[in-house]
Amino acid sequence: MVIGGDAAGMSAATNARRGRPDLEIVVFERGEDTSYAACGIPYVIGGEVDDLDALVVRTPQAFRDQHRIDVRTGHEVVGIDLDARRVEVRDRSRGRTVLLGFDQLLIATGGRPLRPDLPGIDAPWVGGVQTLGDARRLLDRLGPEVREAVVVGGGYIGLEMAEAFVRRGLRTTVVDRNPLLLGGVDAPVAERIGAALRRFGVAVRTATEVVGFDDGVVHTTGGDLRADVAVLGLGVAPNSGLAAEAGIELGARDAIRVDRRQRATADGVWAAGDCAESRHAVTGEAIHVALGTVANRTGRVAGINLGGGYATSPPVLGTAITRVCEVEVARTGLSGDEAAAAGIEVVVGEVESTSRAGYHPGAVPVLVRLLAERGRGRVVGAQIVGADRVGKRIDVMATAIAAGLTAYEVADLDLGYAPAVSTTWDPWQLAARAAAREL
Amino acid sequence: MVIGGDAAGMSAATNARRGRPDLEIVVFERGEDTSYAACGIPYVIGGEVDDLDALVVRTPQAFRDQHRIDVRTGHEVVGIDLDARRVEVRDRSRGRTVLLGFDQLLIATGGRPLRPDLPGIDAPWVGGVQTLGDARRLLDRLGPEVREAVVVGGGYIGLEMAEAFVRRGLRTTVVDRNPLLLGGVDAPVAERIGAALRRFGVAVRTATEVVGFDDGVVHTTGGDLRADVAVLGLGVAPNSGLAAEAGIELGARDAIRVDRRQRATADGVWAAGDCAESRHAVTGEAIHVALGTVANRTGRVAGINLGGGYATSPPVLGTAITRVCEVEVARTGLSGDEAAAAGIEVVVGEVESTSRAGYHPGAVPVLVRLLAERGRGRVVGAQIVGADRVGKRIDVMATAIAAGLTAYEVADLDLGYAPAVSTTWDPWQLAARAAAREL
Repeated sequence: MVIGGDAAGMSAATNARRGRPDLEIVVFERGEDTSYAACGIPYVIGGEVDDLDALVVRTPQAFRDQHRIDVRTGHEVVGIDLDARRVEVRDRSRGRTVLLGFDQLLIATGGRPLRPDLPGIDAPWVGGVQTLGDARRLLDRLGPEVREAVVVGGGYIGLEMAEAFVRRGLRTTVVDRNPLLLGGVDAPVAERIGAALRRFGVAVRTATEVVGFDDGVVHTTGGDLRADVAVLGLGVAPNSGLAAEAGIELGARDAIRVDRRQRATADGVWAAGDCAESRHAVTGEAIHVALGTVANRTGRVAGINLGGGYATSPPVLGTAITRVCEVEVARTGLSGDEAAAAGIEVVVGEVESTSRAGYHPGAVPVLVRLLAERGRGRVVGAQIVGADRVGKRIDVMATAIAAGLTAYEVADLDLGYAPAVSTTWDPWQLAARAAAREL
Repeated sequence: MVIGGDAAGMSAATNARRGRPDLEIVVFERGEDTSYAACGIPYVIGGEVDDLDALVVRTPQAFRDQHRIDVRTGHEVVGIDLDARRVEVRDRSRGRTVLLGFDQLLIATGGRPLRPDLPGIDAPWVGGVQTLGDARRLLDRLGPEVREAVVVGGGYIGLEMAEAFVRRGLRTTVVDRNPLLLGGVDAPVAERIGAALRRFGVAVRTATEVVGFDDGVVHTTGGDLRADVAVLGLGVAPNSGLAAEAGIELGARDAIRVDRRQRATADGVWAAGDCAESRHAVTGEAIHVALGTVANRTGRVAGINLGGGYATSPPVLGTAITRVCEVEVARTGLSGDEAAAAGIEVVVGEVESTSRAGYHPGAVPVLVRLLAERGRGRVVGAQIVGADRVGKRIDVMATAIAAGLTAYEVADLDLGYAPAVSTTWDPWQLAARAAAREL
């Protein structure tokens, strides 16, 4: 039995099916959709992708037909009884509640968007963009009379939504209480992103806190902003209340505690995705990350184990990437602040380079930062920002960190070069060399 | 003293200068240019880059002024006397020869383009594109009356030149004696490149050998081809004759034998760049590769050592990349044929994916291949082909191979995902998983 029909839940269900053709698998999903690409919502809002339906990877019916998985949408699990081995499920359309037994249980209840307790936050023109339902409501609202938008929170989804609103022709402001946009990257990278947003036409108000909403107005510590629509992008907390009430242990930031096989602290209970803990590859500490990649991976691992196989989840680096206003930005491992918090002293190699050979007409600026542990030189973090599709180059550093390479070793890598594609010396090599000089 | 003023020679000279401010450094270059990006020549021919001057990284005068390096262009070293510690140098403009002593000698004589002994190959309308001089001659020839071009050899430079000719509006044919284009990649990848060339308007004749040149005609085993201009792109051999005559030992494919510090087999003699041997990271064997990246790296290492420092050259993976007719193609490590030749049995994970989330309008097909050693699963090679700037993703595999990762470990990497940038499961992870299933 699986609670939650998004990335982690459905990935687990299909992998469990693969291992156990005989297993009866039921998935309860309180919403109406399964297995959809929530991170694609901004591109539908912005008009780059035509239709929300394009985001649905597989419909509930497809799971039923192709995988014999009994997906029940509109069903919310409201209680777990571990002793009786059963869950209490509310059928939202019929308004009735039933009890159902299970042998094994996977909790994939995802994340809960943060909603500060502010006056007016429940107004219909203020909302999140976490589910397809949220997106449908927002699209319905975006009529021709809607001219001004405010995005609360300058993280990945917030910035993607700001770009989407500009693409729709809305006057758009991003408000973030931190002095810099995008948590998890260092100041020089965040500044590039701020500049890209402004070039694209987004007004950016950092170090500014939203204090409330009134009809058509967002009140902030920096004054009032007119808005016909406001979107909340303040991150998510693990949706672990149901598990906690059942007596299942919580860990980092109240995410469900799991071992490397995604086993929770109760027998026959597993957890995966945004509701569960991860382990950080550099610090070894339990953390909470809410990323689609991790949800897919941990769901898969839970499903393999649940289906009688053996799999373990690798530690995470929090590798994240996005394209914002024509610039790609990516990070992996620890940022400067995160390294400091973990008590790891780092040296930084920062290099300004270009995406292609300087003389090639397609060349644009690229900024990379590589953080290495002082002394031994182990790479612990990296960031990159620039246009011309350079974002995925973060994967080189995600691989280097996972493999435990030092800055010396990164400087010696045999990376690809051609004038139309890159520079002779790869920016990571130059950054590694710069860091190595300071070790 | 340095023989050869291109990437390896000048990189060595500047690094030696850094270590030894007092050293007298003389560089002899038989051509007229130093430190230029030869691999940029096709982009000038194709009109994407305006001028050959853009390819000059640093002029001889800049080396003199900024680094106190005595660069003598138009000077060809014609003999090395190791016992007397002197070289014989011909000043080509004055037509005189002088003897000059040295304490330490770096040989960076580069590569010699292969020129088969065919009738008519010395005609003025047939030529290489290895030096700026070659490029100037070709540009001079490309008047409005030139309508048809033949490129002999379907390697990296050959294909880049074919694209360049099409961009100039020439009817262009590539002739290669092998059944597939691009050495060092497996058939499915080579076929994609062939298709990209044809879409772009290049006629491709594989399994066809050129047998001679007559005025305006290239004779091949598949019939005659009309041509106003023909370019040879048949690869390079190490230019090691001078060293061999001096009694310096040669190694793989007659490249100058060197140790990891780039020391040749004679005291106080170093070699770097296309004239010198490398060591392969996977097989451990001595090989010859002619790549700008390796020339820069080995030149740097030789220069540091020559300047009294300590540096070693890392083994190479032969990582190579290019953009051909709007598609990028890249390889690293061993191809299928190379693995077989090295006696390494491999399993292949081949995956057809997309450059971005399938529903994103920027998504295009990407094909990746990952080769892992049967049994233990060590990744030994990888290839990627596709548009939308995916080529540099090869660096992830170059890093994984250098770090000794297995297919299992690659499948577990924490790689970046966002819909506008990539797919949820990275193609490398899917390929690694496919390979791991067969191990």
